[in-house]
Amino acid sequence: MPDVSFLEDVLADDQLSTAATDRDRHARDWGTAERDASPPDVVAWPESTEEVAAVLAAANERGVPVTPFAAGTGIEGNAVPARGGVSLDLTRMDSVLDVRPSDRQVDVEPGVLGGRVDEAVASAGLFFPPLPTSGDVATIGGMIATNASGKQTVKYGKVGDWVRELEVVLADGSVITPGTRAKKSSSGYDLRDLIVGSEGTLGVVTRATLELAGRPDQIRAGRAVFGDLDDATAAVADVIRSGVDVAALELIDALSARMANAYIDADLPARPTVFLEFHANHGIGEEVAFCRRVLEEYDPVEIEIGDERAADDIWAARRELADATRAYYPDRESIHAGDVAVPITAYPDLVGVIHALADEHDVPIPTFGHAGDGNVHFDVLVDPGDDGQVAAGHAIYDAIVERAIELGGTATGEHGIGQGKRQFLRLEHGDAGVAAMRAIKDALDPNGTLNPGKIFPDD
Amino acid sequence: MPDVSFLEDVLADDQLSTAATDRDRHARDWGTAERDASPPDVVAWPESTEEVAAVLAAANERGVPVTPFAAGTGIEGNAVPARGGVSLDLTRMDSVLDVRPSDRQVDVEPGVLGGRVDEAVASAGLFFPPLPTSGDVATIGGMIATNASGKQTVKYGKVGDWVRELEVVLADGSVITPGTRAKKSSSGYDLRDLIVGSEGTLGVVTRATLELAGRPDQIRAGRAVFGDLDDATAAVADVIRSGVDVAALELIDALSARMANAYIDADLPARPTVFLEFHANHGIGEEVAFCRRVLEEYDPVEIEIGDERAADDIWAARRELADATRAYYPDRESIHAGDVAVPITAYPDLVGVIHALADEHDVPIPTFGHAGDGNVHFDVLVDPGDDGQVAAGHAIYDAIVERAIELGGTATGEHGIGQGKRQFLRLEHGDAGVAAMRAIKDALDPNGTLNPGKIFPDD
Repeated sequence: MPDVSFLEDVLADDQLSTAATDRDRHARDWGTAERDASPPDVVAWPESTEEVAAVLAAANERGVPVTPFAAGTGIEGNAVPARGGVSLDLTRMDSVLDVRPSDRQVDVEPGVLGGRVDEAVASAGLFFPPLPTSGDVATIGGMIATNASGKQTVKYGKVGDWVRELEVVLADGSVITPGTRAKKSSSGYDLRDLIVGSEGTLGVVTRATLELAGRPDQIRAGRAVFGDLDDATAAVADVIRSGVDVAALELIDALSARMANAYIDADLPARPTVFLEFHANHGIGEEVAFCRRVLEEYDPVEIEIGDERAADDIWAARRELADATRAYYPDRESIHAGDVAVPITAYPDLVGVIHALADEHDVPIPTFGHAGDGNVHFDVLVDPGDDGQVAAGHAIYDAIVERAIELGGTATGEHGIGQGKRQFLRLEHGDAGVAAMRAIKDALDPNGTLNPGKIFPDD
Repeated sequence: MPDVSFLEDVLADDQLSTAATDRDRHARDWGTAERDASPPDVVAWPESTEEVAAVLAAANERGVPVTPFAAGTGIEGNAVPARGGVSLDLTRMDSVLDVRPSDRQVDVEPGVLGGRVDEAVASAGLFFPPLPTSGDVATIGGMIATNASGKQTVKYGKVGDWVRELEVVLADGSVITPGTRAKKSSSGYDLRDLIVGSEGTLGVVTRATLELAGRPDQIRAGRAVFGDLDDATAAVADVIRSGVDVAALELIDALSARMANAYIDADLPARPTVFLEFHANHGIGEEVAFCRRVLEEYDPVEIEIGDERAADDIWAARRELADATRAYYPDRESIHAGDVAVPITAYPDLVGVIHALADEHDVPIPTFGHAGDGNVHFDVLVDPGDDGQVAAGHAIYDAIVERAIELGGTATGEHGIGQGKRQFLRLEHGDAGVAAMRAIKDALDPNGTLNPGKIFPDD
């Protein structure tokens, strides 16, 4: 265990803890299997950029690992202190610093919850469009670290698309402010987009200027239920191909619908179901009608599209799916609840492959996610007492991710590589791509103190 | 002069030239003053990724500079071989490789002209939204190198926002394919956005997968003429603040209107004029009416908004402004035709500063550009025989860029740093920011052979 007493010179007593309960709470995220949990030697709660810089500089001098942590809602072990050291808990830096409605911008600290940002800008008629489904319990810093996205990404883009400027502390404690408050820039290397999605391995975000969107005047939400999964996935691909202006387009399979019914009495037909949302200031009826025509080509069992008041009901089932899975299969263990993304034309193929693997191995794999982005969440659920099934589960999981990459897609659409997907980095990016990433890591963090054990397969 | 005969082992005779005419043609771009022109020792025309890789690997071994070149339409000397060596002319790699309408994607080589991409996808009802005004004569490779943008960026985003995947040859000849054909990814470091805008200093793009948009069913274009510049800039900021869904929002000042009239008989009122375009599939009339109400708060002299057929006429004046400037002031010399960008609320301030400086020093500075993005193009025009005015012109130019940075903006919205803006990099990004960029440059191009003398002030 490294000596972490040097932090006593940097932070106050109530900003440090080596208590077992605190260390244990910082040892895992939502996706960490118990065998992969790894506690830090100390938890530190900085309260300012200066304190973050002081911690990083001191740790860097001593070669002590520092792993940023906030809400712990990641699913790839992104915030797990894989090599011990310092868990840098940013939840005390949780202020909304400045709302500038006329620029449609807000400055926030990294530990602020996504939902709080929306609350802070609502009175100005604005919102932060790319919030993930977990936006009420996840922090902006974590969303930036993984380049997260959500159900409205199909219309509005990813978290990274809405980050204008960052303040970032680098490994040596120096502070940079990549990006600009202007709408665009061609000034030097885009360090902002390099930091976004780098999972705390290149620097620690201490402030973010986010862009906001105006709340649409018209909102419609609805769902379409299909007779089989092939029709449902083909319909999704066709909606995107046809250029329907959807604000959300999600698909859950029949198993997921059954799980939602069991968990919250969602009263869904036990069939593949597409959830839809539309945002517009004018002419929303025409857009909905256009979408309906596209969907009807695929013989839906039911299409139901209502106004804004229906939206909360419509989305309730989708929101609860992670919890519903655990409740529906209390005795099964998740090999890995992961996400992949592919070009939209490959989306039916990918979902078909997942379901074929589930049938072949008789392993439930509920499938849902941001279908309009070609983004699939899946959960390979095995009987932990059955060694053969556990082994098959791992092979299935690998086959799904590899198939996504083969289809021109990516190992992860929105959750990052973390610990859980390191073995796929080289397949997706090639030796030269991984070498280039490694060169950048070594250039910006030569001592390797920032979140070691993540992203790189050989780390 | 370095020995460049090693290229004879790599390329055929008709792919190499040391002729003075060829070297001279590759010595400058649109913005290069004669004193800054710098010819390469040899011009090379590779025809494949493999040939690009072979040239780069061989040059890297020998420490010979390689500067990518295509249409030469940059304005910051981005493609000028500042240290001689090889001008890598990519115009023979100009194919549209694959159009995939159902994915709304197209694969192209870097030397293809922007206008050709639009032609190739038009029959599928698609277009490439971020094309710059010079899109018909500029190449996709150059647009990626500077993260260019255009009049429709206010609605659709920058070139970088529409790049999905790249093939890039690094300095040592290794090939990476950053990005993904999926709509989004959180897989490893975002090397794609790092390459975009890096002006050929980190790698040479040899293939790009671009995303496309569906052509809108409804287009309207028009203009609003204002009594004075303060009203015009305030109106622009208010249109953005109000969330009007404009597809283009440009402002030219009274001087620019006079220049356009002289050059192409544009028949514009000699007043500050806002040009507008709207794209929608439904309800465009309501959007236009909403915008009209916002504009009318600023007492416009005239508002005229017509249908799609009017668009070409409306935009003709704006398109010709660069040439119109040279024709209107044949005896004056441009200190620098540059662009800066600021947050939209700072846009009136910035334009006000530019005009105050013009008045104070009695130097014409026509001002136009992508107002909706807070992006200003300006041209400081001096009498080259008047040393005092030349000195004042340089000071004015510096003051404008510095003011943009001070207002939270950037030294360049869309043309890159190149040679021309290197002195502002440190002011905008700070010592730590420039050091981080430098570390990345050194990591990916340790011998410094790729486009030396650009971006970095000390290079």
